[in-house]
Amino acid sequence: MTWYAASDYFQFDDLLTAEEHAIRKKYWEKAKFPFHVIPKLGALHIAGGTIKGYGCPGLSITGSAIATAEVARVDASCSTFILVHSSLAMLTIEGQKQKYLPSLAQFQTVACWALTEPDYGSDASALKTTATKVEGGWILEGQKRWIGNSTFADVLVVFARNAATNQINGIVQNGDIVMRKVFVPDEDRIAGVNSFQDTNKVLAVSRIMVAWQPIGISMGIYDMCHRYLTERKQFGAPLAAYQISQQKLVQMLGNIQAMILVGWRLCKLYESGKMTPGHASLGKSWITLRARETAALGRELLGGNGILADFLVAKAFCDLEPIYTYEGTYDINTLITGREVTGFASFKPVAQRSRL
Amino acid sequence: MTWYAASDYFQFDDLLTAEEHAIRKKYWEKAKFPFHVIPKLGALHIAGGTIKGYGCPGLSITGSAIATAEVARVDASCSTFILVHSSLAMLTIEGQKQKYLPSLAQFQTVACWALTEPDYGSDASALKTTATKVEGGWILEGQKRWIGNSTFADVLVVFARNAATNQINGIVQNGDIVMRKVFVPDEDRIAGVNSFQDTNKVLAVSRIMVAWQPIGISMGIYDMCHRYLTERKQFGAPLAAYQISQQKLVQMLGNIQAMILVGWRLCKLYESGKMTPGHASLGKSWITLRARETAALGRELLGGNGILADFLVAKAFCDLEPIYTYEGTYDINTLITGREVTGFASFKPVAQRSRL
Amino acid sequence: MTWYAASDYFQFDDLLTAEEHAIRKKYWEKAKFPFHVIPKLGALHIAGGTIKGYGCPGLSITGSAIATAEVARVDASCSTFILVHSSLAMLTIEGQKQKYLPSLAQFQTVACWALTEPDYGSDASALKTTATKVEGGWILEGQKRWIGNSTFADVLVVFARNAATNQINGIVQNGDIVMRKVFVPDEDRIAGVNSFQDTNKVLAVSRIMVAWQPIGISMGIYDMCHRYLTERKQFGAPLAAYQISQQKLVQMLGNIQAMILVGWRLCKLYESGKMTPGHASLGKSWITLRARETAALGRELLGGNGILADFLVAKAFCDLEPIYTYEGTYDINTLITGREVTGFASFKPVAQRSRL
Amino acid sequence: MTWYAASDYFQFDDLLTAEEHAIRKKYWEKAKFPFHVIPKLGALHIAGGTIKGYGCPGLSITGSAIATAEVARVDASCSTFILVHSSLAMLTIEGQKQKYLPSLAQFQTVACWALTEPDYGSDASALKTTATKVEGGWILEGQKRWIGNSTFADVLVVFARNAATNQINGIVQNGDIVMRKVFVPDEDRIAGVNSFQDTNKVLAVSRIMVAWQPIGISMGIYDMCHRYLTERKQFGAPLAAYQISQQKLVQMLGNIQAMILVGWRLCKLYESGKMTPGHASLGKSWITLRARETAALGRELLGGNGILADFLVAKAFCDLEPIYTYEGTYDINTLITGREVTGFASFKPVAQRSRL
Repeated sequence: MTWYAASDYFQFDDLLTAEEHAIRKKYWEKAKFPFHVIPKLGALHIAGGTIKGYGCPGLSITGSAIATAEVARVDASCSTFILVHSSLAMLTIEGQKQKYLPSLAQFQTVACWALTEPDYGSDASALKTTATKVEGGWILEGQKRWIGNSTFADVLVVFARNAATNQINGIVQNGDIVMRKVFVPDEDRIAGVNSFQDTNKVLAVSRIMVAWQPIGISMGIYDMCHRYLTERKQFGAPLAAYQISQQKLVQMLGNIQAMILVGWRLCKLYESGKMTPGHASLGKSWITLRARETAALGRELLGGNGILADFLVAKAFCDLEPIYTYEGTYDINTLITGREVTGFASFKPVAQRSRL
Repeated sequence: MTWYAASDYFQFDDLLTAEEHAIRKKYWEKAKFPFHVIPKLGALHIAGGTIKGYGCPGLSITGSAIATAEVARVDASCSTFILVHSSLAMLTIEGQKQKYLPSLAQFQTVACWALTEPDYGSDASALKTTATKVEGGWILEGQKRWIGNSTFADVLVVFARNAATNQINGIVQNGDIVMRKVFVPDEDRIAGVNSFQDTNKVLAVSRIMVAWQPIGISMGIYDMCHRYLTERKQFGAPLAAYQISQQKLVQMLGNIQAMILVGWRLCKLYESGKMTPGHASLGKSWITLRARETAALGRELLGGNGILADFLVAKAFCDLEPIYTYEGTYDINTLITGREVTGFASFKPVAQRSRL
Repeated sequence: MTWYAASDYFQFDDLLTAEEHAIRKKYWEKAKFPFHVIPKLGALHIAGGTIKGYGCPGLSITGSAIATAEVARVDASCSTFILVHSSLAMLTIEGQKQKYLPSLAQFQTVACWALTEPDYGSDASALKTTATKVEGGWILEGQKRWIGNSTFADVLVVFARNAATNQINGIVQNGDIVMRKVFVPDEDRIAGVNSFQDTNKVLAVSRIMVAWQPIGISMGIYDMCHRYLTERKQFGAPLAAYQISQQKLVQMLGNIQAMILVGWRLCKLYESGKMTPGHASLGKSWITLRARETAALGRELLGGNGILADFLVAKAFCDLEPIYTYEGTYDINTLITGREVTGFASFKPVAQRSRL
Repeated sequence: MTWYAASDYFQFDDLLTAEEHAIRKKYWEKAKFPFHVIPKLGALHIAGGTIKGYGCPGLSITGSAIATAEVARVDASCSTFILVHSSLAMLTIEGQKQKYLPSLAQFQTVACWALTEPDYGSDASALKTTATKVEGGWILEGQKRWIGNSTFADVLVVFARNAATNQINGIVQNGDIVMRKVFVPDEDRIAGVNSFQDTNKVLAVSRIMVAWQPIGISMGIYDMCHRYLTERKQFGAPLAAYQISQQKLVQMLGNIQAMILVGWRLCKLYESGKMTPGHASLGKSWITLRARETAALGRELLGGNGILADFLVAKAFCDLEPIYTYEGTYDINTLITGREVTGFASFKPVAQRSRL
């Protein structure tokens, strides 16, 4: 008889193909390994996700998404670490695959993906870091911020403005994140990244993966709350017997069913070649909205234990906040979808200083 | 090329079977007919839903749910009228099918379904109306409230307490809703309704249908808002170009995608024989929660026009309120699911008068 | 010993001056009169509010606000009727006070206030109705919409664009709301309304009054819910004994205490000459936000009875919607305050059609 | 001319007495001192709050509340540290004032207040730690959890069950939080704490103080956001010029005005001897509800910077969570008020294991 996780109330497992199901089972079990030691992550065989060859697993989008959620269910930080390494950096590398991917796939080296700058968050396309052509390579000048993994990464994918064309190019390099006259050889310029639009292709896939992180985190929170309510007593009765507790738990459960289905639908749209940027933005923003609501409810259910590290929920509650913001803040993603469904771009306001 | 409704952003249509798709198309078009004249409803061939034979359409649950939503998209009141007639009354009748169903299927007669009483809403199992056996039939005594269609129904399905067994029986009768010594012949006692538990079987199906009403209503609201924002200008620009408007519209759209997927999953669980009462309650309560949020956002988007009858949204906003409450209030449904997932029933409080 | 209304949990009454307290008491009692017969409203001695002389009561702002809330507590529609008549129309009239105010103060005549037009809601300053000077008076041409009381008003205050100066002028006239060559004598041009800015003075006061309507409505809803929960039983216990019910009731009560204090503070700021347009907009928008939340909770608490007219809550729930929108929608009011506290006007978007 | 803080939009300062105003000014300025070095806290002259004599400041409740908020505005952790030391521990000590208060008032010694135990959070009255009478004193046995300051406190106020009377007594002692046969001399038994009810007197005052912490924290967040939006640009315009940003900022501002007024009213009710436990619970729970909403909005406004420690908001966002829970969780406080306004205690559920 099939076994379903407590949070899989609508038996999402039945919507999976046999192969997707095997992936879920594999990461469900493996997610219990001690993740904090990076070298052991290689054994997960998760890095590279959908990439075929070069030691990568060649999963489907759905399979890759499920694996992301299963890791996030246990540890959101670890999931973010893998996401940056795999869904951002590894997916961007074109032209140097043989050189970099095999070792990244094994986590023998770690990658980061440097787009955002101190003054350009949501408006990333305005970035200022320059790449100036010199003999045999390029000189990078500039600064990057909020770059996950960058403090210890071996391979940095850096986006810079081509000083000649004023377009944005991708470059692979090793080094620190404040770049003063950093030289990068020609062979490390990434093929296919010739403008800001080109980064959007990678971002579309990574937004799906990011959308599955809060799904995993919420499932983990639910499992913890479900167990806690059953085990802990107050006023002589298990907390699970209280109306107020049940109502919170059930709202969480409803949110999670919906988040899973929205995430799954996003994968299917992608796999059938129909997913638009607006679809991805809607999926990511809506799921993070509900995950935040779910985590807040879970946090309340645990009372004082909801702010203690040992109970996971406090950590998950905080881990969700960066996810709500990175890969496009909630606000920016709603405006991306808004542009698609209305035909009007509303990113830039009229900056009209009031005379009042 | 396939055409998708504006509210079908995640192309739910692709998840439908060919047959389900045809049903959707049929009711999409037919829903434009003038519903206010009941006789014309017969041409919809919708009454009876999943019942096979007796002039009923014999749809799948999914097909029946989609048809419900399509009608609700255009007119929620009409959808409720059909739901009571078809998913409650017609589905309950056992033993008198040949006598009643063919004319009900054509809307030549109209049915209602009388369970709730003035003093027993959420606690319906405590109903007081009695059915006392007399020669050749039964005498009904009691009062019913909030019985949709009852002011003009030809056939009333009435639940009453068997004076001998103290169990709840179903009886089909013609008459008024305040019953003083109403005689019903033996042949009109419904087979298979021998206790309150037996009403739950019908309620399980009808809860799915009820869950699809807010989906349809929300789709209708979205379509109206989408058009309105594009057409109406303020401060020299279409409302669709405002950040605040776009954000509301996109949140509505996200809710609707999720509601559709949750409703669809519920149908599939039912069709595979796996749907529990808790599943149905979660689906119904969660969907109405999000529909209410969606309708409030839509109401705001239309500003002053959001409270005028001609723009549909005001009507839809109000039509949602009874749906939030009937077939189990939001609160009761969360506690039904809560009981299932925690193992504790929390319906009855300790009524302990405080000494303070 | 002092008696406090159930909704006055924080004993706001103690913050009132002796005079304000007497006003509250007076309208608390008078609010039980049958309002539907307009002539009887004269006996309330409420019309004209803060105006001194001409048969008007000459209340303080706080006193006038409290009277508004007390009427709204019992009947929101009646409160809106008085607000339009008194706080908009009567307060605007300058130069014809002796001619119009005495009869308006007695409700022997009824007034309306016509600013908004079909195509100009939030952007009212763009109105198109024209006033062209002719011998002995003015000719009005144009159309007005959402004008409360207009279907039966005797005195219409109409705002029109002076065809010569292109500025907005106020004119008192008798007539219908679609104006084709309507002649108004010179003596009925309102003194002191020479531009759109001048309407803002009246709107500032009326926004305070509008802000007190949802306070009154919410108090009425709370009283009804409090009584209902105590009287109605389900599962053998009064609804008041349920955790879920208590939590909703208490959140309503907290909202109401805060709304009262915010409304009171607004009055005091006004009375001390410190109230800015941003203050009034924040008060109005924040209070309507919380009132809407409060009404939705109250609606839920009454279950099926929450949608029946006899229980007041359904009516109050719907009555709040226009208040959320008139006198500046929630969105517009937040942007007015936003402009004041940031120094940037963000009303007009860049209407940039996307190339996607 | 009077200067108001950006978050004091409704000029709450004007509601203060001259003395209260001076207190606010004093702590506004002093709150800039380096708090992390405890000895310097003595110079704040804040510990002991309302206590007169023994080197304590003898503030009014309102004055003490304002001081609490001003410290919380700058650093919530420091504010909690002071609250536990002053409003819980120092206020409880009766009978040993001369022995302990002077040094506590100077922060030469630090106090904590130990009520909660690992298995008894919301149901604190069920505590298990015992105090057994022996010659010359008492032997304490038991364990305490979530006791702020306990890791470094010099003076511990401990609540234990009198082994003879089964009532709860307060005892002052020095020592660790796992107590195995801890001896406390007779002179350190606190006078006036003879039952659990007696702890409620202290909790009533401390709940007011706790309610002012989120007010201070929210003011600090608002100030930070206001500055950030004005200074930071995206897409060529300051963030303050965006509709979406302004709307969030204004909702925060509205919440803060209401929170201040609710907190102030609570103080005035207390000072006039009218404050009930339900009042305090409503104030604390409602204010924390809105503070949490306010902090989440502020967190969003800062985007990526909203999760960085240097910008205060991330810290404040997390600091609010324990405050939402301690001194009675949100849920428990709503039920305390609920009991008072309905007359029914709903704390204990019927723990009825479902047969499903």
